Amino acid sequence: MSRRYARALVYPAPNHPPEIRRYPIPDLEPGAVLLRVLASEICGTDVHLFHGRLQGVPYPLIPGHVSVGIVEEKNGAVYDVEGRPINLGDRVTFLDVHATCNNCWYCLVAKATTRCPHRRVYGITYGAEDPPGLAGGWSEYLYLRPNTKLLHLPTEVSAATWMGGGCGLPTATHAIELAQIRLADRVLIQGSGPVGLSCAALALLSGAGWVGVVGAPELRLQLARRFGVDATFNIQTTTLQERQNAIKSLTGNRGPDVVIEASGNPQAILEGCELVRDGGRYVIVGQYTDNGDVLINPHLHINRKHLEIRGCWGSDFSHFYRAIEILKRFESRIHWSHFISRSYQLDEVPNALEDVEQQRVIKALITPNGPIDS
Amino acid sequence: MSRRYARALVYPAPNHPPEIRRYPIPDLEPGAVLLRVLASEICGTDVHLFHGRLQGVPYPLIPGHVSVGIVEEKNGAVYDVEGRPINLGDRVTFLDVHATCNNCWYCLVAKATTRCPHRRVYGITYGAEDPPGLAGGWSEYLYLRPNTKLLHLPTEVSAATWMGGGCGLPTATHAIELAQIRLADRVLIQGSGPVGLSCAALALLSGAGWVGVVGAPELRLQLARRFGVDATFNIQTTTLQERQNAIKSLTGNRGPDVVIEASGNPQAILEGCELVRDGGRYVIVGQYTDNGDVLINPHLHINRKHLEIRGCWGSDFSHFYRAIEILKRFESRIHWSHFISRSYQLDEVPNALEDVEQQRVIKALITPNGPIDS
Amino acid sequence: MSRRYARALVYPAPNHPPEIRRYPIPDLEPGAVLLRVLASEICGTDVHLFHGRLQGVPYPLIPGHVSVGIVEEKNGAVYDVEGRPINLGDRVTFLDVHATCNNCWYCLVAKATTRCPHRRVYGITYGAEDPPGLAGGWSEYLYLRPNTKLLHLPTEVSAATWMGGGCGLPTATHAIELAQIRLADRVLIQGSGPVGLSCAALALLSGAGWVGVVGAPELRLQLARRFGVDATFNIQTTTLQERQNAIKSLTGNRGPDVVIEASGNPQAILEGCELVRDGGRYVIVGQYTDNGDVLINPHLHINRKHLEIRGCWGSDFSHFYRAIEILKRFESRIHWSHFISRSYQLDEVPNALEDVEQQRVIKALITPNGPIDS
Amino acid sequence: MSRRYARALVYPAPNHPPEIRRYPIPDLEPGAVLLRVLASEICGTDVHLFHGRLQGVPYPLIPGHVSVGIVEEKNGAVYDVEGRPINLGDRVTFLDVHATCNNCWYCLVAKATTRCPHRRVYGITYGAEDPPGLAGGWSEYLYLRPNTKLLHLPTEVSAATWMGGGCGLPTATHAIELAQIRLADRVLIQGSGPVGLSCAALALLSGAGWVGVVGAPELRLQLARRFGVDATFNIQTTTLQERQNAIKSLTGNRGPDVVIEASGNPQAILEGCELVRDGGRYVIVGQYTDNGDVLINPHLHINRKHLEIRGCWGSDFSHFYRAIEILKRFESRIHWSHFISRSYQLDEVPNALEDVEQQRVIKALITPNGPIDS
Repeated sequence: MSRRYARALVYPAPNHPPEIRRYPIPDLEPGAVLLRVLASEICGTDVHLFHGRLQGVPYPLIPGHVSVGIVEEKNGAVYDVEGRPINLGDRVTFLDVHATCNNCWYCLVAKATTRCPHRRVYGITYGAEDPPGLAGGWSEYLYLRPNTKLLHLPTEVSAATWMGGGCGLPTATHAIELAQIRLADRVLIQGSGPVGLSCAALALLSGAGWVGVVGAPELRLQLARRFGVDATFNIQTTTLQERQNAIKSLTGNRGPDVVIEASGNPQAILEGCELVRDGGRYVIVGQYTDNGDVLINPHLHINRKHLEIRGCWGSDFSHFYRAIEILKRFESRIHWSHFISRSYQLDEVPNALEDVEQQRVIKALITPNGPIDS
Repeated sequence: MSRRYARALVYPAPNHPPEIRRYPIPDLEPGAVLLRVLASEICGTDVHLFHGRLQGVPYPLIPGHVSVGIVEEKNGAVYDVEGRPINLGDRVTFLDVHATCNNCWYCLVAKATTRCPHRRVYGITYGAEDPPGLAGGWSEYLYLRPNTKLLHLPTEVSAATWMGGGCGLPTATHAIELAQIRLADRVLIQGSGPVGLSCAALALLSGAGWVGVVGAPELRLQLARRFGVDATFNIQTTTLQERQNAIKSLTGNRGPDVVIEASGNPQAILEGCELVRDGGRYVIVGQYTDNGDVLINPHLHINRKHLEIRGCWGSDFSHFYRAIEILKRFESRIHWSHFISRSYQLDEVPNALEDVEQQRVIKALITPNGPIDS
Repeated sequence: MSRRYARALVYPAPNHPPEIRRYPIPDLEPGAVLLRVLASEICGTDVHLFHGRLQGVPYPLIPGHVSVGIVEEKNGAVYDVEGRPINLGDRVTFLDVHATCNNCWYCLVAKATTRCPHRRVYGITYGAEDPPGLAGGWSEYLYLRPNTKLLHLPTEVSAATWMGGGCGLPTATHAIELAQIRLADRVLIQGSGPVGLSCAALALLSGAGWVGVVGAPELRLQLARRFGVDATFNIQTTTLQERQNAIKSLTGNRGPDVVIEASGNPQAILEGCELVRDGGRYVIVGQYTDNGDVLINPHLHINRKHLEIRGCWGSDFSHFYRAIEILKRFESRIHWSHFISRSYQLDEVPNALEDVEQQRVIKALITPNGPIDS
Repeated sequence: MSRRYARALVYPAPNHPPEIRRYPIPDLEPGAVLLRVLASEICGTDVHLFHGRLQGVPYPLIPGHVSVGIVEEKNGAVYDVEGRPINLGDRVTFLDVHATCNNCWYCLVAKATTRCPHRRVYGITYGAEDPPGLAGGWSEYLYLRPNTKLLHLPTEVSAATWMGGGCGLPTATHAIELAQIRLADRVLIQGSGPVGLSCAALALLSGAGWVGVVGAPELRLQLARRFGVDATFNIQTTTLQERQNAIKSLTGNRGPDVVIEASGNPQAILEGCELVRDGGRYVIVGQYTDNGDVLINPHLHINRKHLEIRGCWGSDFSHFYRAIEILKRFESRIHWSHFISRSYQLDEVPNALEDVEQQRVIKALITPNGPIDS
């Protein structure tokens, strides 16, 4: 390979201006793969990382967890989970959650790999200076360590479609699995960010009889209605009481059978508990970081309702794999590429972070090697 | 029948002194059964009823929901759920929750009969003056309407054993069903009233690997230890921090796999969420009435924990039926009759109410026709 | 009401020519409803009934279980399961499985109402001469006894759409509930009769990633492909080995994640067990009557496969209710009215029976009061 | 270490007389552990291996899968699944199923590691001459490769208790997990070998209301009754009809709620399907090898019964881990060490194989370094 350096965007330290730095491309150990990055994403987590809101993150950091790229180099035979060889020039993606141990109590007994203490994540828990480096997607090249779980992106799925789903789609796939929607169930989604919108799309694909979304701003709710959501409720222009009345009357005067919280706002939990019908199910996936407490009434909100609440955090390989299968099947019905509002080059990251934080965009891409087709 | 009147204890109105009144014994309509009451119970609900804390209760009221008696009279052929005839002289009990409709959306579509709007309960929702009357167990005679779901008490199960379980045992049977304990799971019960103690007993019978109880007063915790509970934690003599440390170290430093809340205290919800292990299950059965709110952190307590919370309210016939089967099988291992601290005659009800309210007794019986064997 | 007689089609005895007879319209007891029948269906069961293949059927019999009609008369207030009043002139349908007892072990403890010994079915277990009569849908008028579970047909759902689903759609709704399809799962349906086709449609609506149908004749497979089935396999023109090869290669070389048997042929069980992937799920709904035995290898077909097999027989009110909700939501995607090949008047029943038996039609309607709009 | 050779029992080839051979003890690679074997077991699989009935087995072979021993040597730091260090002199056991890949579709997407194509098993799929050797428990020393999943045997659990459970206990733990027994359920076990007896013991510990065992010879049924089984049925002295009548009358005239097949006889499947109650559950764990076909009637045995059948093959680490926890908790109630009829030295293996094959013993141990305490 002639090019021996990669430009990458780096967070030097929490709340410090991002910089572009140049890193040498390391030699590959056996089983490793070098990816020329087509696209990575900016998600809410990257804003949290910028502000230093996650614990144990090794700055300086190259962000970028869910990414897609072209195999530029590899050392020895590498296979995907189906046993198909990974070849030079292949378009692949990979599970950002690297290195669950398959050897601890959580991996082996509880079968909850998201609680594995050895879990490491590209773009989050590997620092820019941890050898061999290049461990985040906001870089021209990504170094994928041996045993990274790789998957070919099927020809039906464009890079833009996959990145439009981004990390939100596997998370939503996990939430939908816990939601166990039955045909014709009425489903309410709280939150209209990438996770919430993907949850709404997946609820429609699961055969829900009615899907509503509570969120903001209007841009996102419009997108939701465009792909088939039955009703949206703008939290900036409606009161809690108005939403409750409207939703109740649209759901047989009992409330939705299933509510999925994907908002990140603790107060949404109270609203969700009140809205869901007696004997219903409530999946809480949005409280990914600590945004404070909420006051609930366990008698009214849980016990007397016979409510079932399921906390959902992160996703595992099965959700990641299923997300690709979903896109392959349903891209013609739900256009996930439309979730992308804009693509940014590495030097535009400061604007991108601001756009994401101000909710001016739904989903923002980083394309370190130049624009990609949508 | 020569005797045409029944003495019954009546709550004339909320917070008014209970009185003994004399009611005529009505003629039986076809399918009805007259029971000479052996025993009824005083549970926490009866204290709530005395203070008028439940809504829609038709005073004056003869309390007493779960009861056992001897068939004194019946009109026509009556059968139990197994198709066995109910004969004069039989010792029977019955599901206090009478008249779920089997015709509404909750009964037929959601299959959640505890949410049926037509649900009526002996001793709670039938007033003393609603014809035909005698609808509570604190009476010499109980009039059981047609289609009341009757069951014979097996010979292995004494009246005292059945009443020691009382209404708490079917409720605990429901909670244990939702808890889905696996062999060797570690289980913590919050609360040491009749429901909590029965949950602890059922967790032991389900093959739990460790059962702990958080509660008070010491009398109840002693009983728990006596029937096999591994560890008890007195909330009157330990701090939250001490309990957390102790419980964690006894449960593999991860916390219990399953926690069942049976305390009625909203703050217990916070403690339970903190104690249960990541990926565990939390059944909330104790918040039967509204005792106020609790502040929880949805990120720490639900989402990041992958917690599954299941609200459990009341019980249905299957739990009632299974409760009898449990007693038949396991009476020799767990002595439910020991839950009974004392029996009271009708004229002792004021003392009984005070003893229950002050937690001087674990379980109190009313024996309207005189003492029964234990 | 001026008209006091109803013409009805009667099976006098097994294998005797059907006759049209005239029955007096009885006076209505309180809670009863008289329906002017718009349409009833001929399903495979009606052919079995004609040949006397079901036990305990009281001939002479007016067949016709799932039916739709207009309320012509009623005695007193009658409500549907949502609590909405049933008024004269309303277009309603009803659960043909009348009178599960809500009082036996199967209803109350096992919660398996399809096993209730008191279960009675319009058009099957009430004879033409059992008072009050008119208990089958192949009649100008149907007498619905008190407590028959009625539902309004929503305006979105035409009578032809509802009858196109017929009794097969609630059954398929039950089977799909047991199948627990996840988004992008590969699903194979065995059988292309009304139940099989509805299962295929519901699998598509549930978000299956691939749906295949094994069946015959070509007419039915064509319909399946038209509404979106990915691949069909004609059992009349392919060998078992060809089908296995083709299906395996279309399902990731592992086989379908879920197989639903809806064929009625015992040999299909062997083929299904071989096709489903290791660790998959197999729902058996088609073996409604005894068509003989099948030789399986429990090691290869169940144990080593870790197979989960779920037998599914009949349906309950929840499936019937959900079937209507499904039609309301999805009629524009799957046109169930296209399942109807032809409508027949009462005097054309002999032809209709032959057409159904010879599989010349997919679904056949009986319209006792003349043609209805499709 | 002074001793550099290990004596081991070897199957040279199928149906050839076993021989004792002497192998050099290899140097340990990093992460490997050398175990001085206290005990290994002879189970039915070892008889199958002797006769060459399993495919793909690399002879010559040192048999012995589930084993326990003392850590004699190790290379570097080694930890158990709880993160506790493995030290010289520790008494440990290990999951015989080594090397599931955590990288294939079955491991990661289906989450069915027992179907992983890279699964390797000590004593079965590693030949005696595959380097580094010493891969079976019928040897003075066992070489455990890096990443073998080790667990300390708790002080409460004697080596004899653990080996009395042997490989049958984790398998039974898996079967019981699938059986989902509820308190007071009636449970029938088919088969009285080590898996069947452990299933019966675990059903009792799970709170079953009645446990019956169908099997032979009498010696095993006696043991079952001694540890608490309610009724046993000797297949050598009763007819199918007698068993059916007896079991039905002992299970409420409906049949057992749950049946677990652990017999290995294909005909047992037919008997099990007939015995289990309508709407019950049937776990099939005994058909570990191909013993031929069985004729069933899918209408009567599956569909009309609403039967749920769950195939269960092998076990994973969670069952192995839970088996130890179960022994720790319940050894005082069920004495698994009593399952052991006799211990054999390496040179007694031919007798041992014959005793197992003739069912003269329940469980036979191999103690390569001399007798152990029971």
